[in-house]
Amino acid sequence: MEKKKPLILVTNDDGMFAPGIKHLIRVAKQHGDIVVVAPDSPQSGKGHAITIDEPLRLNKVEVADGVHAYECNGTPVDCVKLAKHVLLKDRQPDLCVSGINHGSNASINIIYSGTLSAAMEASLEGIPSIGFSLLNYSFEADFEFCLTHISKIIEFALHNSFGDSKLLNVNIPYVPEQGLKGIKVCRQSNARWEEEFLESKDPRDRPYYWLTGKFVLEDKGEDHDLHALEQGYISVVPSMHDLTHYGALSAIEKIEEL
Amino acid sequence: MEKKKPLILVTNDDGMFAPGIKHLIRVAKQHGDIVVVAPDSPQSGKGHAITIDEPLRLNKVEVADGVHAYECNGTPVDCVKLAKHVLLKDRQPDLCVSGINHGSNASINIIYSGTLSAAMEASLEGIPSIGFSLLNYSFEADFEFCLTHISKIIEFALHNSFGDSKLLNVNIPYVPEQGLKGIKVCRQSNARWEEEFLESKDPRDRPYYWLTGKFVLEDKGEDHDLHALEQGYISVVPSMHDLTHYGALSAIEKIEEL
Repeated sequence: MEKKKPLILVTNDDGMFAPGIKHLIRVAKQHGDIVVVAPDSPQSGKGHAITIDEPLRLNKVEVADGVHAYECNGTPVDCVKLAKHVLLKDRQPDLCVSGINHGSNASINIIYSGTLSAAMEASLEGIPSIGFSLLNYSFEADFEFCLTHISKIIEFALHNSFGDSKLLNVNIPYVPEQGLKGIKVCRQSNARWEEEFLESKDPRDRPYYWLTGKFVLEDKGEDHDLHALEQGYISVVPSMHDLTHYGALSAIEKIEEL
Repeated sequence: MEKKKPLILVTNDDGMFAPGIKHLIRVAKQHGDIVVVAPDSPQSGKGHAITIDEPLRLNKVEVADGVHAYECNGTPVDCVKLAKHVLLKDRQPDLCVSGINHGSNASINIIYSGTLSAAMEASLEGIPSIGFSLLNYSFEADFEFCLTHISKIIEFALHNSFGDSKLLNVNIPYVPEQGLKGIKVCRQSNARWEEEFLESKDPRDRPYYWLTGKFVLEDKGEDHDLHALEQGYISVVPSMHDLTHYGALSAIEKIEEL
């Protein structure tokens, strides 16, 4: 009897027609049966948002031969919830891959990212999950140079556990000409957005603010994701959803005496 | 010369006219100068979403004597970013308090919660921050029984560091009759939502799905937030934004050899 192929759930936050997800579907197809559920509009920066006050829809769309694909009117996290509990309620996916995001989700970007929040939601359901992001925002970016590495990482994920983690945050430096140096396992670097707002007036003379900002690295270490990326390596950060700061538990003990 | 009063930023995810934020403003006013920036519509479940593709507005509103208050058309995280970088660019707040949320943000709810994401955004900016949540969803809920404790926790936060953490996730059991047993410092419990969707058809006979679900505790420990709450204590979890799963770093080392 033929061995059953792995079932791989594919999602993203840029929508079904972003080049990144098309490449990811093409690579994932080599490793198993594919179900795709992606947002019907761009959802960058949606973080772990869920839709509570409105109904959700799933519309079947054609993306590639033999691939079941659906657009959803919700957030990336909604896509994963619907995939798991409506479309795939009879069979748990063996892996969830999200992306390939157009732009970095290294460092603190993990908490703003729809791509990584979708993968984290799947990991909360016990599904090993990977968020892939390419450090280039353009829809014209070249993806070919990194597809072999993505394929190997998917192969690894289908045959190895991530220890106690269920989620890998994978970022890929944009080096189509030089080529990739390899893969580094790292921790999340300590960095933040120094926000600035474009302040202007609308045609009715009312003030408005539009988010901009620059990314500031505040980390002297060399074992973190931004360092690996700068050196030309793919960064892989095993991640989790327990936000407890264990080191601070004893520091605030006195609060129990209030 | 009179000592300068602390500056406290107040926000939430339920909007300016939720009872929870009114109580929080009233308590915070006893401890310092208050600036309030809250969403102009309910933003529950918005997680760490930010608004990238649209302009943001700030509208001054009246909420209490001597309090500067603004409604914003963005997410809770947008509110904090605008407060910090537009309204308060000349003076860093000494503390940010978010809430009082109508409903629990204990355990895994922290990652879906607009209330906690707002507080986390302030903590990323180096501002000590606290998210307060009451375990009752009703706008009719009684808040009086817990206001003294909230006041003491704010007082503590203004005079003590949280160790290396900058963020406290504070949940309050709904015990207006029995009264609170006290405060417990705990870790985030391991729990998750077992999602279910209401499946139905709209007036045009098209299928839709609406998120529902039940909360499932998967944690045998007794040092976690849900246990403290069940016993009648306020739970305080020092939290963080480094999502690295340090324990899994060595488990996935082999990936570097791909």
